[in-house]
Amino acid sequence: MAETKNTSTLWGGRFSEGTDAFVQRFTASVTFDQRMAEEDIEGSLAHAAMLNAVGVLTDDELGQIQTGLAQIKGEIAAGEFPWSIELEDVHMNIESRLTQLIGMAGKKLHTGRSRNDQVATDIRLHLRKSIDVIAAEITRLQNGIIGLAAQHTLTIMPGFTHLQTAQPVSFGHHLLAWNEMLERDYSRLIDCRERMNMCPLGAAALAGTSYPIDRHQTASALGFRAPTENSLDSVSDRDFAVEFCAFAALTMTHLSRMSEELVLWTSAQFDFVRLPDRFCTGSSIMPQKKNPDVPELVRGKTGRTNGHLMSMLTLMKSQPLAYNKDNQEDKEPLFDAIDTVRDSLRAFADMVPNIQPNAEAMRAATLKGFATATDLADYLVRKGLPFRDAHEVVGSAVGLCVERKIDLSDLSLEELQGFHSLIEADVFDALTLEGSLKARDHIGGTAPNQVTAACQRALAKVAERAL
Amino acid sequence: MAETKNTSTLWGGRFSEGTDAFVQRFTASVTFDQRMAEEDIEGSLAHAAMLNAVGVLTDDELGQIQTGLAQIKGEIAAGEFPWSIELEDVHMNIESRLTQLIGMAGKKLHTGRSRNDQVATDIRLHLRKSIDVIAAEITRLQNGIIGLAAQHTLTIMPGFTHLQTAQPVSFGHHLLAWNEMLERDYSRLIDCRERMNMCPLGAAALAGTSYPIDRHQTASALGFRAPTENSLDSVSDRDFAVEFCAFAALTMTHLSRMSEELVLWTSAQFDFVRLPDRFCTGSSIMPQKKNPDVPELVRGKTGRTNGHLMSMLTLMKSQPLAYNKDNQEDKEPLFDAIDTVRDSLRAFADMVPNIQPNAEAMRAATLKGFATATDLADYLVRKGLPFRDAHEVVGSAVGLCVERKIDLSDLSLEELQGFHSLIEADVFDALTLEGSLKARDHIGGTAPNQVTAACQRALAKVAERAL
Amino acid sequence: MAETKNTSTLWGGRFSEGTDAFVQRFTASVTFDQRMAEEDIEGSLAHAAMLNAVGVLTDDELGQIQTGLAQIKGEIAAGEFPWSIELEDVHMNIESRLTQLIGMAGKKLHTGRSRNDQVATDIRLHLRKSIDVIAAEITRLQNGIIGLAAQHTLTIMPGFTHLQTAQPVSFGHHLLAWNEMLERDYSRLIDCRERMNMCPLGAAALAGTSYPIDRHQTASALGFRAPTENSLDSVSDRDFAVEFCAFAALTMTHLSRMSEELVLWTSAQFDFVRLPDRFCTGSSIMPQKKNPDVPELVRGKTGRTNGHLMSMLTLMKSQPLAYNKDNQEDKEPLFDAIDTVRDSLRAFADMVPNIQPNAEAMRAATLKGFATATDLADYLVRKGLPFRDAHEVVGSAVGLCVERKIDLSDLSLEELQGFHSLIEADVFDALTLEGSLKARDHIGGTAPNQVTAACQRALAKVAERAL
Amino acid sequence: MAETKNTSTLWGGRFSEGTDAFVQRFTASVTFDQRMAEEDIEGSLAHAAMLNAVGVLTDDELGQIQTGLAQIKGEIAAGEFPWSIELEDVHMNIESRLTQLIGMAGKKLHTGRSRNDQVATDIRLHLRKSIDVIAAEITRLQNGIIGLAAQHTLTIMPGFTHLQTAQPVSFGHHLLAWNEMLERDYSRLIDCRERMNMCPLGAAALAGTSYPIDRHQTASALGFRAPTENSLDSVSDRDFAVEFCAFAALTMTHLSRMSEELVLWTSAQFDFVRLPDRFCTGSSIMPQKKNPDVPELVRGKTGRTNGHLMSMLTLMKSQPLAYNKDNQEDKEPLFDAIDTVRDSLRAFADMVPNIQPNAEAMRAATLKGFATATDLADYLVRKGLPFRDAHEVVGSAVGLCVERKIDLSDLSLEELQGFHSLIEADVFDALTLEGSLKARDHIGGTAPNQVTAACQRALAKVAERAL
Repeated sequence: MAETKNTSTLWGGRFSEGTDAFVQRFTASVTFDQRMAEEDIEGSLAHAAMLNAVGVLTDDELGQIQTGLAQIKGEIAAGEFPWSIELEDVHMNIESRLTQLIGMAGKKLHTGRSRNDQVATDIRLHLRKSIDVIAAEITRLQNGIIGLAAQHTLTIMPGFTHLQTAQPVSFGHHLLAWNEMLERDYSRLIDCRERMNMCPLGAAALAGTSYPIDRHQTASALGFRAPTENSLDSVSDRDFAVEFCAFAALTMTHLSRMSEELVLWTSAQFDFVRLPDRFCTGSSIMPQKKNPDVPELVRGKTGRTNGHLMSMLTLMKSQPLAYNKDNQEDKEPLFDAIDTVRDSLRAFADMVPNIQPNAEAMRAATLKGFATATDLADYLVRKGLPFRDAHEVVGSAVGLCVERKIDLSDLSLEELQGFHSLIEADVFDALTLEGSLKARDHIGGTAPNQVTAACQRALAKVAERAL
Repeated sequence: MAETKNTSTLWGGRFSEGTDAFVQRFTASVTFDQRMAEEDIEGSLAHAAMLNAVGVLTDDELGQIQTGLAQIKGEIAAGEFPWSIELEDVHMNIESRLTQLIGMAGKKLHTGRSRNDQVATDIRLHLRKSIDVIAAEITRLQNGIIGLAAQHTLTIMPGFTHLQTAQPVSFGHHLLAWNEMLERDYSRLIDCRERMNMCPLGAAALAGTSYPIDRHQTASALGFRAPTENSLDSVSDRDFAVEFCAFAALTMTHLSRMSEELVLWTSAQFDFVRLPDRFCTGSSIMPQKKNPDVPELVRGKTGRTNGHLMSMLTLMKSQPLAYNKDNQEDKEPLFDAIDTVRDSLRAFADMVPNIQPNAEAMRAATLKGFATATDLADYLVRKGLPFRDAHEVVGSAVGLCVERKIDLSDLSLEELQGFHSLIEADVFDALTLEGSLKARDHIGGTAPNQVTAACQRALAKVAERAL
Repeated sequence: MAETKNTSTLWGGRFSEGTDAFVQRFTASVTFDQRMAEEDIEGSLAHAAMLNAVGVLTDDELGQIQTGLAQIKGEIAAGEFPWSIELEDVHMNIESRLTQLIGMAGKKLHTGRSRNDQVATDIRLHLRKSIDVIAAEITRLQNGIIGLAAQHTLTIMPGFTHLQTAQPVSFGHHLLAWNEMLERDYSRLIDCRERMNMCPLGAAALAGTSYPIDRHQTASALGFRAPTENSLDSVSDRDFAVEFCAFAALTMTHLSRMSEELVLWTSAQFDFVRLPDRFCTGSSIMPQKKNPDVPELVRGKTGRTNGHLMSMLTLMKSQPLAYNKDNQEDKEPLFDAIDTVRDSLRAFADMVPNIQPNAEAMRAATLKGFATATDLADYLVRKGLPFRDAHEVVGSAVGLCVERKIDLSDLSLEELQGFHSLIEADVFDALTLEGSLKARDHIGGTAPNQVTAACQRALAKVAERAL
Repeated sequence: MAETKNTSTLWGGRFSEGTDAFVQRFTASVTFDQRMAEEDIEGSLAHAAMLNAVGVLTDDELGQIQTGLAQIKGEIAAGEFPWSIELEDVHMNIESRLTQLIGMAGKKLHTGRSRNDQVATDIRLHLRKSIDVIAAEITRLQNGIIGLAAQHTLTIMPGFTHLQTAQPVSFGHHLLAWNEMLERDYSRLIDCRERMNMCPLGAAALAGTSYPIDRHQTASALGFRAPTENSLDSVSDRDFAVEFCAFAALTMTHLSRMSEELVLWTSAQFDFVRLPDRFCTGSSIMPQKKNPDVPELVRGKTGRTNGHLMSMLTLMKSQPLAYNKDNQEDKEPLFDAIDTVRDSLRAFADMVPNIQPNAEAMRAATLKGFATATDLADYLVRKGLPFRDAHEVVGSAVGLCVERKIDLSDLSLEELQGFHSLIEADVFDALTLEGSLKARDHIGGTAPNQVTAACQRALAKVAERAL
């Protein structure tokens, strides 16, 4: 039975003693790499078909392998597969079970390949599938954001710099800034997919193999663009994992920024938005609490992906070619990065369309903090003052208002004219929120018609996606 | 039953809808924090005893709680505890089960505490236990290293700088350099333990509690030095986890350096040491391979601890006080850092005493590469030449030897005198490996008597440890 | 002249061609390591005195070296020293100038040492001085925080968890949480200082030296606790830099948390504190802006120290012993970490005592958000209800208040009794902010007398410091 | 004069006191952002031309601005520009000088823009230029590698896995693995360039501007693909810097792997290659040393780029929109990442074509270590044995050879047949290095004709590049 089989039957010919029991556990990867069992079987099927095509396996042997692997796939899906630590990894577990099931033909499957190219193929297949799921979640989240933005081109909130009230923007315009981050994330993800979609199978241990293999056939059967170009690189390269982790770290950083804003906005002090109860949790001690757990947790998970990226870079630093055992450490960070970014996107894609903006509170906040001070300066410039001088004039007016705890629009025309004689009665138009918003009427600006057009362009881009 | 119980019974009074099913899974921590179940129960027992002492719980209630928790501890140990995702975390799972078992008294246990101080206590207890295990493994590894070193004060190998042969050292002397790294690691670990050994229990949610609790009693019962000083800090502080991860990252970095050397030394090119087969594995394709898997894997695991440290630092960056849900993300990196450093040390402590140095190969390597060139320069200085001039003279002699592919000691006295007239027949004593070794006779030097004395001092330090 | 001197005069005997000009610039460190010139001279003076004591240098030679180094120190201080890239580093620049000034005796200074132990000594001396400056800044900042806290034990603000109003705390109590972080930082810094304060001088290149040096004399002369124990370790160890960078990263993380709070608190939405104008800057375009630049910038600088820590760990990963050129890369991260943490602490130590709390706004905020809901639950527990049931009752009351947009204390007694019959007229005492604060009367709690006592303990600890 | 001008003239209208002197130094960026002076001027010229086109500036004002900026550019190039800390940053320094030179028109330049969009534009322009330089260095290095590889398709060396001899490969084949890493780096760099090549100018502070600006005109004039889509995103986005740092970290990781190999190969133990003296340095104490400084230093510099990546990710984590002062911290890591990767590539591009392989030593090393054991197993498979059984047979043969310290080809036919009766006299062909090499004859394999073809394909790809 698998449980008692010693690895020595697989590589032990030159070994004079068995592996230390703790070392066996310490060096085994089957506890985490069994996650790639499906891809391992896909890869073996493609490899076997190719070995048959080039004459290394007979039709009969191929048939037996296909039957055996189908049964193993079923056992795994049913949770009945006898995983064994002694057999080290997913590859040896499956191969060993195959030989148990079909005998001699099973022993021939490993012809012309090595675990080094096999694992590289499995990871790429697994990552590619994961990328496609993640890409779909980004798209779903973007659609949710743009949809919400389109409803709020006239909902005015304070735009902040330095977390100080800066200028009025629409809630829709703010949301589109989130969309832009995700648009770039999507683009990076697709670039990563394209670059990693090459087939290392056939590189064997590191130098290629002496069997007459057809690498184009396996590459094509597994949906890769082409075989990789160099066998040493094929087994030592983990760029795809590093690049994916870099994508994940930056995407999570973006989600951390959105999360930070949601946490701020749901505070009693801001009260700009409400999140449905189903995305929040309470306190075991404070009965009044309704905590924005999802954004907080997502913000915290940024640590995880930054960490995994650093793990991968540390791992690869200074490794001589070709394969080293160190590389076994690539899987856990990569798998967790996949899960983290996928689940965080999913939670956001579920939650974001259900954000309930509190337009009243947003408007009230915009009316405090001199959000239209720049508009007053611009007004003076239009009347002929150089910008720098206008800035100085308005700064003094704001200083007075701070002292008197009032807003610019609370000053009388006379008081305003006291700061500069160019100010006339039409100044009050410049000081309204709607006027300020409408004035920023160019591509990328917060004017309602611009935001509506931006929503349409954003939707069109997302709609074009193949995935 | 636990599986169907809704969290709303614990904090849901103000909530109008249940938690989204995916959100429940996404935000639950019980899958990983159940690892602290034992510490959670210890903490609850101490808390209950204190509540009884200050009159909040009757003797009878305390008795029921003790009995209930004992039963739960048994259920967990037996693998029969009904863990439930719906109950979020280890704390609520245990409390809910307790109430199920003993009714009313179970509902009183959470008086005067919050999950915020409870989890902070649990993690510290768990980390403290782990530190003690890790400290013992460091000590075991150091004993192994020093023991091996003491046997090899006369085994000569090339000391390298820039991986170029520099000067002869003994294998024992080299090993003691490893011991010094671990000595500092141990010292850092003990500092970390001392600093984190404070009890946050009683901080409650963030502000303390209105019950007449006795924080000194619980601190003392749980083996802490004292209660923490500030309640907000108590629930928001994760310094202990960051500091432990920093310890772990540096310790693993040290092990990566030792690993790198073992990998080099077991290569065919160096062939300085052999590792027993039981610490090595083979290849699925290349029958001749015997790979130094343990050092390679440990070297790779450095990525893991660097990553966890970065996770923790990212997590804590910019968090406003006091507790935020983000902090739930502290556990997985911390737990994995604990496991990684503990297992890597264990593997090394098992392996290192069994390293078999190949003294012949080491000596042969030392004879190549002009390891005694510095000794020749020092010889000239003793004869009166300023060091800089001696350096220049020997450089020229080496240049000739490189050209002729011979060693310095292969030059005749006449040839040597051609480089400087101060050279006399006694020069050849300076050029022997033993002479070179013996000459470095001061504290920290590679002279055999110094290395023997250093071994004794190192052993004495390790023997003094309380742990 | 120094500018034209080729390095070959220092190590070029065996070299047949000069260093490539770009390579010379690329590998030179003098542009950044000249910062350690003072320590390099200190080290050389101690080394020379020891060489004289053991008979390697005559009194006359020692005198010349002392005079020459004094002149060089003056030239450097005056900005007149002819630094040269060709001479690689600070050590060779100074030694070469010394030889230029005093001839033969200068060439003898490098007897019994190497740049490997020399640079290790210089960095430790430089770091030790920097640690003392930083320790003093931490102390100054702590004094400022505690002083401000002591004035605000009765200034009530909302304590937050999840950035949601949780329970009332005093501003003084909140500030003491900051102090606790810094208390631990100080403790870590002192541990780091103690551990690194060992003298590597005498390790020479890696194996010690054949001269009869007295390592205890140099260690003592330079203020180190003792000579280091192993020569290979002495030249390859950079633990002190890693440990300091870990200290710096965590300290900056703490400052980032304080900064985040200051940024929040100075926002129009919170308005809890004001910062003096001299710690803020304005906008080039928005005349009304007063931005909390110092906390924002300090928060951003956390990236820098996290980065330097990761640099150092990456650098050391997998380096075989003893010295490798890689280690030249230790200096810039370390120096910048020193500057960053020192300047950030200085800015905070200047600014924090001048924070102006807005007690009115804090109190108003505390009155919103059901900060005393826990007190109501505790009230019910004191009347005999189990905590979990009390929690449920108050949750429902809060739910009603949210619906009606009122606070708990706005409910009539009858309405409150509708939630539970145990509620009586004395309930309103439990719902006041002052009552809530005063009730948390145990070590670490927010009760005013506890905070006052905590301030006294904190001040006493700081006052005890030797530094 | 610039030195005495107070910033209050630029944003101080509402400020009642000047900036604290230390705070001024602490928050100023001009010491490092003056590096972007040229790009700042380019951006201003494009902005001014656009303002003129839309009627905000007269032809005369535009002319004055152009003349003034040209003079400033000259002053900067000549090192005569009066940089001032008081004026904070490169933008204010240049604008202030412009106003000094041309008066009123200078004050109008800042119309319709803010420092927030201005700095975002400057960094992108600077990064884009740097990318083009770096891309050219990658290309140069790849050409050098491929050129060397093409000469060594028949130079046999041991291919390693786990740093144990695995199978024979050609030196040329190994070098092409290096080329593949760089090919992906180049591709990532170009993707980064494409993605970041968008113009943020016109986003103003965060919301756009009320002037009738033409963002398409400025984007086009500055060589950008298009204006950015959202004003808030435009001033808060630093993705380009993160993505570039991720590129830099991975590229440096690749160079660290090549460096590690060069350090190994130049050791006395391997002696596979020699580096010209001009890329090496010596020792101040050991006259014989010739150290591979360039690869060592490049390996060490990997720490730097990993650190900068982590800095940038930490910096951006949790930042609410739009611009915060934190972002000033983006520049130093980015600039140093640019310099590090550019200089390291340059050093490698200079050095690699001059690597002198030691074919004799490589061949000798390949003959040790059973490099053809896999070929023996494959031989048996071709005779009909299943691969797993063949592996076992060869393992036993290797075990005997290890015991007797001989190679497989040293066994007699009889001895070999003792392991399996399928072995016949033709077995010795399979055991030659040339036979082993030639047998791996498929795309990616090490057969000489495959490597030659791979060189041609690689050269063709590089030749196609537009840059």
